[in-house]
Amino acid sequence: MPDDFTPPDTALTRLRESVPLVHCITNYVAMDLAANVLLAAGGSPAMVHAEEEVADFAPIAGALTINTGTLSPPWLRAMEAAADAANGAGVPWVLDPVANFATPYRRDASQRLLQRKPAILRGNASEILALAGQSGAGKGADSGDTVEAAEDAARALARQTGAVVAVTGPVDFVTDDTRAARVAGGSDRMPKVTAMGCSQAGLMGGFAAVVPPLDAAVAALVLFAEAGTQGERASQGPGSFRVAFLDALAGITPEELSNAAHLTWL
Amino acid sequence: MPDDFTPPDTALTRLRESVPLVHCITNYVAMDLAANVLLAAGGSPAMVHAEEEVADFAPIAGALTINTGTLSPPWLRAMEAAADAANGAGVPWVLDPVANFATPYRRDASQRLLQRKPAILRGNASEILALAGQSGAGKGADSGDTVEAAEDAARALARQTGAVVAVTGPVDFVTDDTRAARVAGGSDRMPKVTAMGCSQAGLMGGFAAVVPPLDAAVAALVLFAEAGTQGERASQGPGSFRVAFLDALAGITPEELSNAAHLTWL
Amino acid sequence: MPDDFTPPDTALTRLRESVPLVHCITNYVAMDLAANVLLAAGGSPAMVHAEEEVADFAPIAGALTINTGTLSPPWLRAMEAAADAANGAGVPWVLDPVANFATPYRRDASQRLLQRKPAILRGNASEILALAGQSGAGKGADSGDTVEAAEDAARALARQTGAVVAVTGPVDFVTDDTRAARVAGGSDRMPKVTAMGCSQAGLMGGFAAVVPPLDAAVAALVLFAEAGTQGERASQGPGSFRVAFLDALAGITPEELSNAAHLTWL
Repeated sequence: MPDDFTPPDTALTRLRESVPLVHCITNYVAMDLAANVLLAAGGSPAMVHAEEEVADFAPIAGALTINTGTLSPPWLRAMEAAADAANGAGVPWVLDPVANFATPYRRDASQRLLQRKPAILRGNASEILALAGQSGAGKGADSGDTVEAAEDAARALARQTGAVVAVTGPVDFVTDDTRAARVAGGSDRMPKVTAMGCSQAGLMGGFAAVVPPLDAAVAALVLFAEAGTQGERASQGPGSFRVAFLDALAGITPEELSNAAHLTWL
Repeated sequence: MPDDFTPPDTALTRLRESVPLVHCITNYVAMDLAANVLLAAGGSPAMVHAEEEVADFAPIAGALTINTGTLSPPWLRAMEAAADAANGAGVPWVLDPVANFATPYRRDASQRLLQRKPAILRGNASEILALAGQSGAGKGADSGDTVEAAEDAARALARQTGAVVAVTGPVDFVTDDTRAARVAGGSDRMPKVTAMGCSQAGLMGGFAAVVPPLDAAVAALVLFAEAGTQGERASQGPGSFRVAFLDALAGITPEELSNAAHLTWL
Repeated sequence: MPDDFTPPDTALTRLRESVPLVHCITNYVAMDLAANVLLAAGGSPAMVHAEEEVADFAPIAGALTINTGTLSPPWLRAMEAAADAANGAGVPWVLDPVANFATPYRRDASQRLLQRKPAILRGNASEILALAGQSGAGKGADSGDTVEAAEDAARALARQTGAVVAVTGPVDFVTDDTRAARVAGGSDRMPKVTAMGCSQAGLMGGFAAVVPPLDAAVAALVLFAEAGTQGERASQGPGSFRVAFLDALAGITPEELSNAAHLTWL
């Protein structure tokens, strides 16, 4: 474990003690699950997207998360305004550039947001490769590339942008360029439930309100891995998995997190 | 019990017999749960928000509900047009001014809607205080004030606007200024599930289509209290609570409601 | 069984083998469930609605589905652009004209989309009657007419537009004018869960990516009937039904589908 790293169990304790307000600008598909994930884990989500108020709202939040899933021009303008307001107020923010490889509109929007310097950048392998200017094998909203194939791109993005970069997949990879780790665990049922990744980005925002960005990204990845592992045991398919996953997020204790062996430093 | 009051069990019977169409203009986060709550309890929800059609739709509904959760200018224009059309047709409507204390945009929008005289006004304590022009301790979408602290504001709003005012919390308070009641019950898991309050406003719309406004607000509060109590017993966390809550809404009989001791008149 | 018909069990095998990308433009209420239904059954949904990108996205999908539930002008423009792009690229698309009988705006929008010649048209009886220019007894989003009452209208629409037409209800009816079938099964709990019909249209898109339109519509109806039947047995109300239904969609084998007696050719 690196010096000065806040372990996930301590991060979880801080999240539940402070119940931070998290300003979420996310896609229509993910709003319900993303809010419930944050509530279950211990945060206080608020979905606010109007250009008329995002600059007033982001500064009062503990963190901001921006997800480009169901993008459109008024939402993109609000995302840019919210990121600017967060930066001005010292509020950390998380970028989740959904399917940025799929269309030129989506690629350009992701680059515009990336230039605003998120504290954490989360994506699947195809998304991270596309952000780094490389072509991958993504299809629709799904990655067509392995996490390993995107590790160099993740390190390069971390170096260039100053963001912590998390590449999610069966085994996640996370780096701030100088430090790097892998997080294993979770469930094969996770990709069968929509908006799990988007919700993970929201949870990274919750943790980013209480611990530094790398520690926050790791805490969210580890908590998802443990809740996914517990959720799989308590479920029979993707429907009951989602239910059991939320129950697990709320029920997992810091002790369980510290005993779980999901995290490996590289 | 006041004279001429329709008790919740009778209101529930009427709801299920008439299956009223409820025109809902609600936020993106709540749409799924709000529709499922109304369907489970016995109503027929329809989510319709375009300016091009709300004035055609509201008059054919039994009630209209307006929730400002994920507000934006085109939606606000549609909310105003729908409220006007409902008023013109004698259709009762419910206002749920989400987080009106959080930004100037949201505060102004809530006041514009309140001037259109809803039959029922529902909010948490911080929202009701803010509507009455008082400052509270709300944060994001969550109340930072106790229900008790907002009772005077609720009575004043009821007197000034003619609306039935419901302040929701661990113990709810509801008044039309001349009459007042408290509703206890429910579950600590309710605030851990997103959009429960928004869905309650939708359910008040369902009841407002079949009984007078005070009776409708009380019926929705009592049904939520009972379904929350039953749902807690059948759940292990917030994920399974939401599932069990919907099952309970559909399964609760009028007899169970009349036997439950959630309601106290003041 | 007609010549050259792909039975539902074979269609399901193909769906799971190819995991087709399905471009969904659907309503806010249905997005979560529609995505989860497609994921559980075996497809790869992507919700993309901006005019700025739908024409780039539809051609890379295996199918497109358009649902008019929460309609507004920018969405309608995107629906038309997406349908045109799908047609230009030979991508089959599904139209679900929600509540087209309820307002003039909704009726006109549905006709504009119908003129773009969907491969499959899905609606409840009141919607199909309205599309055929007949007046029914629909209320809000719910059908007020029996499936039988809409069968002639369905045949006429199939003849006039070239679409496969599916009328859904307690027993579904599906026709391409020369062939026709009924699909029985499912659960009385299905109408108590919001967005089940919208999600069925999405699933028809998934199957339309791998088998011809009539075969795709039948496969989706039969898979819904079987998952509904299994879901009812594993549930206690509408909340647990939705969960069990998703589990069933993921767990049903092609063998179970071929043994189930839901389909009757006329």
